[in-house]
Amino acid sequence: MGRAASRTVDVAPLVGRARAADARAVARLISLVESDSPALREVARALAVLPGRARVIGLTGAPGVGKSTTTSALVRALRSDAQRVGVLAVDPSSPFSGGALLGDRVRMQDHATDQGVFIRSMASRGQLGGLAAAVPQALRVLDAAGFDTVLIETVGVGQAEVEIASLADTTVLVLAPGLGDGIQAAKAGILEVADVYVVNKADRDGADQVVRDLRYMQSLGGRHSDAGAWRPPIVRTVASRDEGVVDLLAALAKHEDWMRGCGELQRRRRARAAAEIESLALGEVRLRFAAVHGSAALTAAADRVVNGATDPYTAAEELVAAL
Amino acid sequence: MGRAASRTVDVAPLVGRARAADARAVARLISLVESDSPALREVARALAVLPGRARVIGLTGAPGVGKSTTTSALVRALRSDAQRVGVLAVDPSSPFSGGALLGDRVRMQDHATDQGVFIRSMASRGQLGGLAAAVPQALRVLDAAGFDTVLIETVGVGQAEVEIASLADTTVLVLAPGLGDGIQAAKAGILEVADVYVVNKADRDGADQVVRDLRYMQSLGGRHSDAGAWRPPIVRTVASRDEGVVDLLAALAKHEDWMRGCGELQRRRRARAAAEIESLALGEVRLRFAAVHGSAALTAAADRVVNGATDPYTAAEELVAAL
Repeated sequence: MGRAASRTVDVAPLVGRARAADARAVARLISLVESDSPALREVARALAVLPGRARVIGLTGAPGVGKSTTTSALVRALRSDAQRVGVLAVDPSSPFSGGALLGDRVRMQDHATDQGVFIRSMASRGQLGGLAAAVPQALRVLDAAGFDTVLIETVGVGQAEVEIASLADTTVLVLAPGLGDGIQAAKAGILEVADVYVVNKADRDGADQVVRDLRYMQSLGGRHSDAGAWRPPIVRTVASRDEGVVDLLAALAKHEDWMRGCGELQRRRRARAAAEIESLALGEVRLRFAAVHGSAALTAAADRVVNGATDPYTAAEELVAAL
Repeated sequence: MGRAASRTVDVAPLVGRARAADARAVARLISLVESDSPALREVARALAVLPGRARVIGLTGAPGVGKSTTTSALVRALRSDAQRVGVLAVDPSSPFSGGALLGDRVRMQDHATDQGVFIRSMASRGQLGGLAAAVPQALRVLDAAGFDTVLIETVGVGQAEVEIASLADTTVLVLAPGLGDGIQAAKAGILEVADVYVVNKADRDGADQVVRDLRYMQSLGGRHSDAGAWRPPIVRTVASRDEGVVDLLAALAKHEDWMRGCGELQRRRRARAAAEIESLALGEVRLRFAAVHGSAALTAAADRVVNGATDPYTAAEELVAAL
């Protein structure tokens, strides 16, 4: 399946079918934006003029806190409200993600026969930066396909996970007692970007302590100390029994109202679009460098660095100047 | 300590002291190249004209195979040969690396009082691509400081670890029985880039099977099937008892001879310098984008993407064109 085969993709009818809630067309479009195929730009162009109204909610947290269970409980609650729900399960940190994501998918089988739910796993496949480009495009596909809410669930709480979760309008940090997650989360900076805290497994010992730790950290100030600023609420859940999910939905709705009221939603979406444009522009520059890679000029510069005639920073400046 | 303080770093005497085997000066120079300080370029320029003769050996492998023990055994063997040895322990995958690297450092305490050994831990601190720039510069510092051999030890076998290990002249993959590492390693592509295989814990059950698996994979061909090509030797070690370390040193010396004889060493160093130049050039472009980030043009482009007036790919092309 070379370039010729990829070119035969007829994007317009595919987009039309996706907008008519055809799950296979949605899946095909996401595959196209994931694979960096020649059709990617055509898909992006076709989707650009179809901004939808999807609310995008990111869920992150350490392994074991019950992210998938919380996601699944949210899907059930939103479905009972007749919403169409998309789920992107993203593992940015590992090329060996098959296992974990397969586990998530198995747990999500509750929804396997529900036409109103679309679930997709995305892994990095070792391409650093690949997900940073692919996830926003996958979001656009689901948005254009008319999903009311899209949940982005990430595995782990590393920097890459925080970045992925931040692609959402609202970011939820899921914590649970007994895992020392508060500290881990603080290290990765996720406490700062979370809009809603969920203390899951709230029926277990230690849940009160997690809530107290969060309140204490909030009391230390930071960005939430200004008047009119959003103060992330703390919601207790037992997601496996659907307890607290109504409270979580209420907190999410309240955050959305706040964002719309003060212009924060537009500000966030603009900042994300700017970051996405920059990221794609860097990819374009990388391609141009790749075109000169192996060229006589770069080989000569590399030889000069190896032989000590110049340093790599000076050589890099010359390469940029030659663009 | 702002820009003014950083500017007071007097690089030339620092380089002079590092070349006179002053460990504190070496440590200070590595901190400078790690921190992306204004002095970084000055250090790079001062080091460029001092290409040393350090042999660089990368060690990678899954957690638990005994990489640190193998590194430590190699250090002992090289020290008994009166070589000065540098060790860079690198964890590219996690911002939470303190624990693992601290563990390594504790194990390396055998060498803590030996002036001929310099050990340094480097972690990504959440900066994607940061290590890709910092590790080559740290290598240059150790090279200029006159170390005979530098060992780069990475944690794990992910794509980033493979890239770091590939900065070496010779890449060693450490395996051990009972961990299923063969499969993991194959996924990450490390089997393809390794020049020497070490089967550590060779006194345990299953070691013969690991050797057989490696031989079978080698028999399947690939890059090593050409006449005159390097066929990675398989060395059995029990690093905790220094067994097999002489064989490992012999295999490393043989690989070095082969590389020098056929021009592979120069080819590898040139390819690494070219990749480093490209990486630094991309960083420079990123800085230029950052300068326009928040500018009226980018904000306007982001708004047009949010509102569906254009797609991010077209906007990115316009941004590159505006450079």
